[in-house]
Amino acid sequence: MLPSSTKAILCDIGGVLYVGDSVIDGAVAAVKRLKQNYPVRFLTNTTQKTSSQVVKKLQELGFDISADELITALDVTKMFLQKEQSYARFLLTDDAVEFFDDMKQFPQKYVVVGDAQENFTYANLNAAFRVLNDGAKLLAVAQNRYFKDSDGKLSMDAGCFVKALEYASSQEAMLIGKPSSAFYHLACEDMGMKPSECVMIGDDIEGDIDGAQKAGLEAILVKTGKFSPKDLELGITPQRVVDSIASLFLVK
Amino acid sequence: MLPSSTKAILCDIGGVLYVGDSVIDGAVAAVKRLKQNYPVRFLTNTTQKTSSQVVKKLQELGFDISADELITALDVTKMFLQKEQSYARFLLTDDAVEFFDDMKQFPQKYVVVGDAQENFTYANLNAAFRVLNDGAKLLAVAQNRYFKDSDGKLSMDAGCFVKALEYASSQEAMLIGKPSSAFYHLACEDMGMKPSECVMIGDDIEGDIDGAQKAGLEAILVKTGKFSPKDLELGITPQRVVDSIASLFLVK
Repeated sequence: MLPSSTKAILCDIGGVLYVGDSVIDGAVAAVKRLKQNYPVRFLTNTTQKTSSQVVKKLQELGFDISADELITALDVTKMFLQKEQSYARFLLTDDAVEFFDDMKQFPQKYVVVGDAQENFTYANLNAAFRVLNDGAKLLAVAQNRYFKDSDGKLSMDAGCFVKALEYASSQEAMLIGKPSSAFYHLACEDMGMKPSECVMIGDDIEGDIDGAQKAGLEAILVKTGKFSPKDLELGITPQRVVDSIASLFLVK
Repeated sequence: MLPSSTKAILCDIGGVLYVGDSVIDGAVAAVKRLKQNYPVRFLTNTTQKTSSQVVKKLQELGFDISADELITALDVTKMFLQKEQSYARFLLTDDAVEFFDDMKQFPQKYVVVGDAQENFTYANLNAAFRVLNDGAKLLAVAQNRYFKDSDGKLSMDAGCFVKALEYASSQEAMLIGKPSSAFYHLACEDMGMKPSECVMIGDDIEGDIDGAQKAGLEAILVKTGKFSPKDLELGITPQRVVDSIASLFLVK
């Protein structure tokens, strides 16, 4: 059951709707039901894929989700660089770098770091460090520590490499993706809602739950994806904890 | 001129004796003069090379330095693992990994991180993260932020990747190399000296100067290697600052 004050939903995707290439049991029906009752925006820090690739994947997995219901950290990053009228160096997957094709000129005022996976080589990281050393600012598309990989184990996420570059360049990154309040507020605005009218659903106790609560939303933690019981010992209290997104409507 | 209380010398090598493959002007003669006047131990966090490779390089560059005058962070790491009777996973250069050939069995109680350069791939870092996630402890052979590379520019050093793994695994690394007091004390003991009787010479304001002072030694900063004028604005005050190791004897 959702709080009666709920007017709109924000929902994480990786770990909440699917893990790797497997849909979470009952998630497709739960999304359908959510959309019948509320406006919904799906948020993701995943920067391995561009918006259109993420929507395509969600649709292939059976989800009825359209491009205008999805907000990725890459979208928000592009908006930021356009507003700043600045170029940047990008440490991302090849597909994501292509998404910023017209923003790679010099001088590069920012270094943008997101999921880059195999592109997190020493050579690429060091090249980014040298741009920072020449005066560029570090922009973290995401700050996640790890994600649940397709083999079921946890894998290092972009936040780890942000920390590496912060340490190398003695500067603190500006965060663009979750858990920055700016990202949550933008998503609420996109539905014409105030943060207090929205509920965030996620599997990441820091990025989803703590971030949303700090932005003024209520937050529901699902026990799928990267959830681990020790997440509940960090002093962060979700408004509700459910087994999975499918459990949301069990008692409604 | 060295303080009159000085009875022995500890000396960093990279950035003090040479940069890349170039000897610092006058460094060969300065080392000779130091050795005529004091017992000297050369310390390095460089883990790209094993002790014997480092000594070979120093001798090829013209330095009269023998194997028993050199103490590397790899030497200290091996001593630690032997004392702990533990195996580990190693994130180092291939040569350095070979140095630990008999310590790679399972269970791996530690993850050892030092300079790994091209071996700092996403796959290798992630494999190390997974060992940490299974309960291993993180051991930092070095915590340096950057070093002066052979092209004259700064490059990311092992400390950055230690930070990445600390963030991923939510644990703090135990430091084996400089600036840990243990390393400095071991080097002083090796000469039968007390820390207060020894002077450290280095180009790294944090690793060499701050570390040595915290271990009870005096410390001389050389303006070669990774030195930058902003190093003197960090609130760390070397007992003396000289242009290079060759300047040490100019006024003696």
